[in-house]
Amino acid sequence: MSIIKRVAVSVGDLNGIGIEIILRNHWHVKKLIDPIYCINKEMLNRASKRLNIDIPDDFKVSEPKCKDFKIKAGKISKKSGIYSYASFKQAVKLAKNREVDAVCTLPIHKKAWELAGIKYKGHTDALRDFFSAEAIMMLGCQEMFVALYTEHIPLRDVSSSVNKTDLTRFLIDFYNNVKPKEQVAVLGLNPHAGDDGVLGDEEIIIQKSIDKAHKILNLKENIYTKPIVPDIAFIPQVRVKFKYYIAMYHDQGLAPLKALYFDEGINVSLNLPILRTSVDHGTAFDIAYKSMQPKSNSYINAIKYIVNHTN
Amino acid sequence: MSIIKRVAVSVGDLNGIGIEIILRNHWHVKKLIDPIYCINKEMLNRASKRLNIDIPDDFKVSEPKCKDFKIKAGKISKKSGIYSYASFKQAVKLAKNREVDAVCTLPIHKKAWELAGIKYKGHTDALRDFFSAEAIMMLGCQEMFVALYTEHIPLRDVSSSVNKTDLTRFLIDFYNNVKPKEQVAVLGLNPHAGDDGVLGDEEIIIQKSIDKAHKILNLKENIYTKPIVPDIAFIPQVRVKFKYYIAMYHDQGLAPLKALYFDEGINVSLNLPILRTSVDHGTAFDIAYKSMQPKSNSYINAIKYIVNHTN
Repeated sequence: MSIIKRVAVSVGDLNGIGIEIILRNHWHVKKLIDPIYCINKEMLNRASKRLNIDIPDDFKVSEPKCKDFKIKAGKISKKSGIYSYASFKQAVKLAKNREVDAVCTLPIHKKAWELAGIKYKGHTDALRDFFSAEAIMMLGCQEMFVALYTEHIPLRDVSSSVNKTDLTRFLIDFYNNVKPKEQVAVLGLNPHAGDDGVLGDEEIIIQKSIDKAHKILNLKENIYTKPIVPDIAFIPQVRVKFKYYIAMYHDQGLAPLKALYFDEGINVSLNLPILRTSVDHGTAFDIAYKSMQPKSNSYINAIKYIVNHTN
Repeated sequence: MSIIKRVAVSVGDLNGIGIEIILRNHWHVKKLIDPIYCINKEMLNRASKRLNIDIPDDFKVSEPKCKDFKIKAGKISKKSGIYSYASFKQAVKLAKNREVDAVCTLPIHKKAWELAGIKYKGHTDALRDFFSAEAIMMLGCQEMFVALYTEHIPLRDVSSSVNKTDLTRFLIDFYNNVKPKEQVAVLGLNPHAGDDGVLGDEEIIIQKSIDKAHKILNLKENIYTKPIVPDIAFIPQVRVKFKYYIAMYHDQGLAPLKALYFDEGINVSLNLPILRTSVDHGTAFDIAYKSMQPKSNSYINAIKYIVNHTN
């Protein structure tokens, strides 16, 4: 139970705030886990000097195969894109080889990846491809997590994406990955959850998917609710009942989540052979290397999730 | 400036909590406005006795044309539906005749209206028909208001409802009704506001509608923002910049609003010949006539809105 977890930490875009968050919080993080940072010594030295933060004595690194480059605070750069991808690949490699129990990623810059010729939009995309697996994207914090049934698709395509086969599989996968102890809130798709079909009827498909998932999971008690009215699901009186929500689309879940818990949020990739968590903020180029002490709640929470969710 | 406003208050479903909220808060409300309650004396006596709350001496009524009936706490009833509709019609009549400056409605029960053979789903629907006008539905509180471009339609129909003609007119109507002093946040439709077209392109139509509205309004400074990323629009750092939001669809605006300010929210009907505000909660049949002192924030806020928004 109390064995300390080994976690590979990818440093994200070195022109951004990731490395500052890492260096400032090592003292805290090492009490929670055994971190291995995916950065080479030269780049670490450069960042440390520029930030005027000493490298801790017990700072373990695993070097990505990548050329050094000149850090340019707050700049979108091809070289920085290449480096952040290499750091991420190194972290995934350690996890694949079981040298670590999980991966925690600091933010990369999507445009820098594009300049670097990397074909993925982001970490989750890349992980889906690396493992040929239907990763589930879940965001949230201790108080509340939202898993997204559909993610980065146009709103006009959401309705037609709600089908029994995919949603049933999603619900089964979600349960098997999270093993929630309390009931999980499943959101309806339409205003008022369709008001008995007057405002849309995808709730019928959602209900059938829930029923099928329950049947296949064969649990003592049903784990999923009926499709809940979306704009009531997040009011305080309902929120106290649920820790996990299944949202049918991106903004349905993330707008209320971020309105309530923006600074604390993390991003978790479920349903993969490895566990990966991430901060839920970007590279914050505007405050990089400016001694502005970027907030670390999200990073610490991403580490804590790993502590509580690996065997 | 300090002339006290006359407000017709419809009592809502008398089997619900509306009349208790009215009686308990008359002492407060009369300091803000000159209220005229749309209920007849017999029904008022029955409710007052049952609630064990005395009728204040200065409690003015305007009697709806409707039969008395036996109050049945927490019951959906045809008679109660007929009465709540008559009370509402009486309030609207007073406003039409300029005997009052505005109308404030307590909650009706939709099913009771249906049983009573009333063809409207609710107050806003009825008002649209009474005045043949494109009422704008806006919900919120002092901290934040959300106006809905589309309301009670299936999610699958939202995308095709975003068109330049209707949205431009909506933006012009909204401005002319609210006369906001600060910039108004217009939400994009898609995740990440489309990410430059990768996740949907309705943001182009939204931007064109904003541009057209600005051109027609011809203000010194542009009042509307560009289409904002929907799940970032409500984080604390963005919220401080805006009081008014234009949401493209029901749950996009109302899920974050209710997550943040459920108890305080009110409902405002704009773009009608009369101003109507309402509480943003239901009949709460489960606590009606049980001396459970239902919350009055929403009612008081609905009254305050009238004080601040009538000439």
